Amino acid sequence: MAEKMRAIIKAGRTPGLEMVLRDIPRPGPREVLIEVKAMSICGTDLHIYAWDPWARERIRPPIIVGHEFCGTVVERGADVTEVEVGAYVSAESHITCGQCRQCRTGRRHLCQNTQIIGVDRDGCFAEYVVLPVENIWINPPDMPPELASLQENFGNAVHTAFATDVSARNVLITGCGPVGLMTIAVVRAAGARIIFATDISSYRLELARRMGADYALNVAEVDVVDFVRSHTDGEGVDVLLEMSGAAAAIDQGFRALADGGEAAILGLPSAPVPFDLANHVVFKGAIVYGIVGRRIWDTWYRIRGLLSSGAVDLAPIITHRFPMDQFEEAIRVMRSGQSGKIVLFPDTSDL
Amino acid sequence: MAEKMRAIIKAGRTPGLEMVLRDIPRPGPREVLIEVKAMSICGTDLHIYAWDPWARERIRPPIIVGHEFCGTVVERGADVTEVEVGAYVSAESHITCGQCRQCRTGRRHLCQNTQIIGVDRDGCFAEYVVLPVENIWINPPDMPPELASLQENFGNAVHTAFATDVSARNVLITGCGPVGLMTIAVVRAAGARIIFATDISSYRLELARRMGADYALNVAEVDVVDFVRSHTDGEGVDVLLEMSGAAAAIDQGFRALADGGEAAILGLPSAPVPFDLANHVVFKGAIVYGIVGRRIWDTWYRIRGLLSSGAVDLAPIITHRFPMDQFEEAIRVMRSGQSGKIVLFPDTSDL
Amino acid sequence: MAEKMRAIIKAGRTPGLEMVLRDIPRPGPREVLIEVKAMSICGTDLHIYAWDPWARERIRPPIIVGHEFCGTVVERGADVTEVEVGAYVSAESHITCGQCRQCRTGRRHLCQNTQIIGVDRDGCFAEYVVLPVENIWINPPDMPPELASLQENFGNAVHTAFATDVSARNVLITGCGPVGLMTIAVVRAAGARIIFATDISSYRLELARRMGADYALNVAEVDVVDFVRSHTDGEGVDVLLEMSGAAAAIDQGFRALADGGEAAILGLPSAPVPFDLANHVVFKGAIVYGIVGRRIWDTWYRIRGLLSSGAVDLAPIITHRFPMDQFEEAIRVMRSGQSGKIVLFPDTSDL
Amino acid sequence: MAEKMRAIIKAGRTPGLEMVLRDIPRPGPREVLIEVKAMSICGTDLHIYAWDPWARERIRPPIIVGHEFCGTVVERGADVTEVEVGAYVSAESHITCGQCRQCRTGRRHLCQNTQIIGVDRDGCFAEYVVLPVENIWINPPDMPPELASLQENFGNAVHTAFATDVSARNVLITGCGPVGLMTIAVVRAAGARIIFATDISSYRLELARRMGADYALNVAEVDVVDFVRSHTDGEGVDVLLEMSGAAAAIDQGFRALADGGEAAILGLPSAPVPFDLANHVVFKGAIVYGIVGRRIWDTWYRIRGLLSSGAVDLAPIITHRFPMDQFEEAIRVMRSGQSGKIVLFPDTSDL
Repeated sequence: MAEKMRAIIKAGRTPGLEMVLRDIPRPGPREVLIEVKAMSICGTDLHIYAWDPWARERIRPPIIVGHEFCGTVVERGADVTEVEVGAYVSAESHITCGQCRQCRTGRRHLCQNTQIIGVDRDGCFAEYVVLPVENIWINPPDMPPELASLQENFGNAVHTAFATDVSARNVLITGCGPVGLMTIAVVRAAGARIIFATDISSYRLELARRMGADYALNVAEVDVVDFVRSHTDGEGVDVLLEMSGAAAAIDQGFRALADGGEAAILGLPSAPVPFDLANHVVFKGAIVYGIVGRRIWDTWYRIRGLLSSGAVDLAPIITHRFPMDQFEEAIRVMRSGQSGKIVLFPDTSDL
Repeated sequence: MAEKMRAIIKAGRTPGLEMVLRDIPRPGPREVLIEVKAMSICGTDLHIYAWDPWARERIRPPIIVGHEFCGTVVERGADVTEVEVGAYVSAESHITCGQCRQCRTGRRHLCQNTQIIGVDRDGCFAEYVVLPVENIWINPPDMPPELASLQENFGNAVHTAFATDVSARNVLITGCGPVGLMTIAVVRAAGARIIFATDISSYRLELARRMGADYALNVAEVDVVDFVRSHTDGEGVDVLLEMSGAAAAIDQGFRALADGGEAAILGLPSAPVPFDLANHVVFKGAIVYGIVGRRIWDTWYRIRGLLSSGAVDLAPIITHRFPMDQFEEAIRVMRSGQSGKIVLFPDTSDL
Repeated sequence: MAEKMRAIIKAGRTPGLEMVLRDIPRPGPREVLIEVKAMSICGTDLHIYAWDPWARERIRPPIIVGHEFCGTVVERGADVTEVEVGAYVSAESHITCGQCRQCRTGRRHLCQNTQIIGVDRDGCFAEYVVLPVENIWINPPDMPPELASLQENFGNAVHTAFATDVSARNVLITGCGPVGLMTIAVVRAAGARIIFATDISSYRLELARRMGADYALNVAEVDVVDFVRSHTDGEGVDVLLEMSGAAAAIDQGFRALADGGEAAILGLPSAPVPFDLANHVVFKGAIVYGIVGRRIWDTWYRIRGLLSSGAVDLAPIITHRFPMDQFEEAIRVMRSGQSGKIVLFPDTSDL
Repeated sequence: MAEKMRAIIKAGRTPGLEMVLRDIPRPGPREVLIEVKAMSICGTDLHIYAWDPWARERIRPPIIVGHEFCGTVVERGADVTEVEVGAYVSAESHITCGQCRQCRTGRRHLCQNTQIIGVDRDGCFAEYVVLPVENIWINPPDMPPELASLQENFGNAVHTAFATDVSARNVLITGCGPVGLMTIAVVRAAGARIIFATDISSYRLELARRMGADYALNVAEVDVVDFVRSHTDGEGVDVLLEMSGAAAAIDQGFRALADGGEAAILGLPSAPVPFDLANHVVFKGAIVYGIVGRRIWDTWYRIRGLLSSGAVDLAPIITHRFPMDQFEEAIRVMRSGQSGKIVLFPDTSDL
């Protein structure tokens, strides 16, 4: 094994990312070292690249970025027994303390001391990454690497969709970024009745149709609330899955929601939004679920179930593949909005 | 309108059914009169035909049998406003009191004073049937009559499947009679991972495969518990849906159930069965749901959702169609076990 | 029986209420006529009195106001069988259509065509009131009338508290108006751990302590979030029950809520409020329940359970009793904020 | 610290227990050594003493018995940081693997590789005991040792009661052994309406009344089903909590259960029982929960909530205290049935 590795880092407190050589990390007693085979880009990585207010507040450079990946275990710490060297793995990106009340009551996704790789400590946009064995998920050997890498992000979609009860029900998904698109696929797989999806990008709305939306609506062109009401006998949707973080979409979504409906919210408004709590929640008798991360490991078992049965096919959402060295170009495409998920490969022969 | 109608009745306290002419009934103030277009045969009708111990205890001849049907409203009582003459309808077969605690708390399927049509009062195996307007479900105009008739029975499958959480999970369905077969379709539509189905009839197991079972197992040939464990990495199934009422199937089903799993039971053992409560329920930390009828009307809205979206296709299960006059032949086929659902038509031009 | 009755009405589109003589109404076929024994004043009545923007929008004078009461059935319509003349009753004030989707799926409290007595049709601040038999609740014969009258409003508290899981958990109740005070009693009865209550009125905070709050905090004097955190080992509360409708209280409440906590909201902000959806709901993984009315009749069975067992004692909250003729004085006291619930009696010998 | 300690062991494959001197164990890297202050006797200990079929199958002598206790941490392993030496602690007695599916999805109580102290490895009926730090629960400093010791067993009661929804509802508890008695207290604390309790021992029924049962019924003297029905307006109980494992009690309990009711079962029949699945579960639309152990740590947080608020007072159930050296006498009393919980103290000055 080499001593140095390529790694994509945020070097300083300015926009951009750069590729550098770093020492390959060594695993601690309960950690494993993984050789990365594929890595996928998340919206979070774009925030870090752009060095937006959230990134300035949260990120402490220098740090290796990235939190979606798959790879092969090449070394394990002295106290690791449950994963073999050679195992083909992905990982839960939230490293949790195991000692707070949330961790101790089966809610590790709400850990009071979470560290996210690529955000709070070195991430996976590198040839190698070290992780606690508690964060390792073993993949089926025949899973394509680009799909294996996507699972972490897919888990956000799975977590959101299954917080509510979508089978045989009408569902509105506001926001067709990659997670919204994957959510459409989950909801379709779960036997939803009518799926409405909204966005402002015609590129993404076309992907939404491919992922299974019955109606992919451009909010610049269609009155979403009217459209939904008129296509549901006036009932509105039973379920709102909010993936955009946009105040207007949140408001539209709740207005389209039937009385007694459920809303799961993954999208993050960047600031407090005016919210019509009385009409959107109280009078409606609505139930609203805040969604963060993935339930560990319940969501991952669901991921496994949906992918291994073929109920969900994520292939259409992977629109671009690049060598890791071309990460600048990959980020440029991702920022253009003209993409689904983009996957990078350290080894160009895997492309 | 004629004054007499053909009706299939249990005339006396002996096996068999017969067709007779009866006066067409008149609707009360809150009732509607429906001209029947299609009627489907249920296992309950076979019990009444055979005059088995349950039938002897429950049925008070003479009575028109049958409780699955669809048709057209041809007359309505003075106080009916919510359904039009000409409406194309099916019906909830359980007539409930509206005044018991269960009715008053959203659990009409558990009404303390339920009357089932074709069991406790005249049923729908006739050219006309009268029902309270509270029991009427309006169908989409383009729904084929044989499918519209099936909805009541399909509702048992929908109620059972959605009592548990099957999406992305491994599911075992014990018993592949018509309701078991429809349950397979529901579970598939809801995005289950692996679906195991068991029966003793190769005819039914073949239908089980067509409805979406991954593994349709003949219990006479396969060790079900071993098979399930070995095809689920030793985990067992997350969900058991028991549709057979057979003591051996119940025992197998619970042994194949993972610790922490859920079981929904629709099948009715004809007598108390030896049941390993300690190992099947307590140590397993299992949750067991008893299922009766359909949730009124929540299950019907789910039925609508699954059928209108095309998530469930019930066509393969309708194996035979007969003119109403050939009901004896229809029952003979149904009793042979070499059938799925059988539909009768009063008007032979609808065949 | 007399032909005329005293009734408190909103006569025109101006502030105030007045007492007039009205014809005693006659019950329709499925209605009952009730002689009113006690009536209690709700915040809604104050809005109507004050003729605030909500009242101007909703109320169509002339109308008899009031929706909380108890009394005796003195006449019943031709088709009523389930309630006897002489029965001692209270009533669900929301008259529902029975035909919308919400009604048909066990969620009558979310009926799309609700009519509230005293708001959308004549109410109970009169010597007699007519109601559909479907809205009648039979009281235990020995229940004091002031308590029987209170049940409708108590139901809001019961519905709110049991939307969440309060037993053995830390709970914050924001707003100590009458419903907030009754909610404290429910939460105490359900075995909560620490109960925090907040308000701005020292009169109400004193009542909060009597109803069972461990800490009754004046938000003008105490930093509620700090106080809650420091009295819960930093955990925050597991449950927030919002009864004030005040933007500041909502914000405080959510900030005091533990990650993964539950919030039930009955309080109605009079306009959209700036709401930190990202931090209050999404990152927190919170579940938020909008609460309206009472679950019909599930909440009423709970009311019965809590009162008949003595688990909840509402006596301390009934601070004033007046003859019906002194309604102006009663409303003056109620508006002063120096009261709990106020009960009016048509017959002064019942005082 | 001494090198030897007193310990109560099952020495060989015959009835009885004996006290011996043993080496004080040493904690591993992630373990702590606890000096035991109080230990309480469970029914499981009696099974081991009696060397009944279950014990013969499960126990591998020689082994230190006992799994309920409290004490003080006197040494910790090299990798323990979260518990201090000197901490006053109790412990979850189920040592779980952390790697099976159940452990990984927040259901450690259903761990596929559970080891129970005093059953599968050395227990706590000794002056010292070693446990993984993951099993340690820190007690409030002022909690009496006999109460701190009881918490593990109290957790069975808490887990059972809160598997169902008892607030404001009618509840039947079948079996008034110590866990049944503690369950009565929990259900009372949670605001149940009427609590029925059954047993065959008048001693225990008297304790049941003290713990809060409204009706403590001797099944030898009272027809339980008739009694329950006649005291609930014919409705039956909403909740059955089965703590006896007796076939007759199980049958009675389910017959007394209202349609749509819930049953949680902790009692363990020693063999498969004839069970009327059709009438007890299916037609009833019942939900049945199998209960094992405690939810880790959710149940413990509930324990803390109920005890620290004073909602539950367990004092009446602790009927006897003995020096550890008199364990033979303690077991004799416990086996007589004339006791609640019995606590042993290694240090006689703590009595």
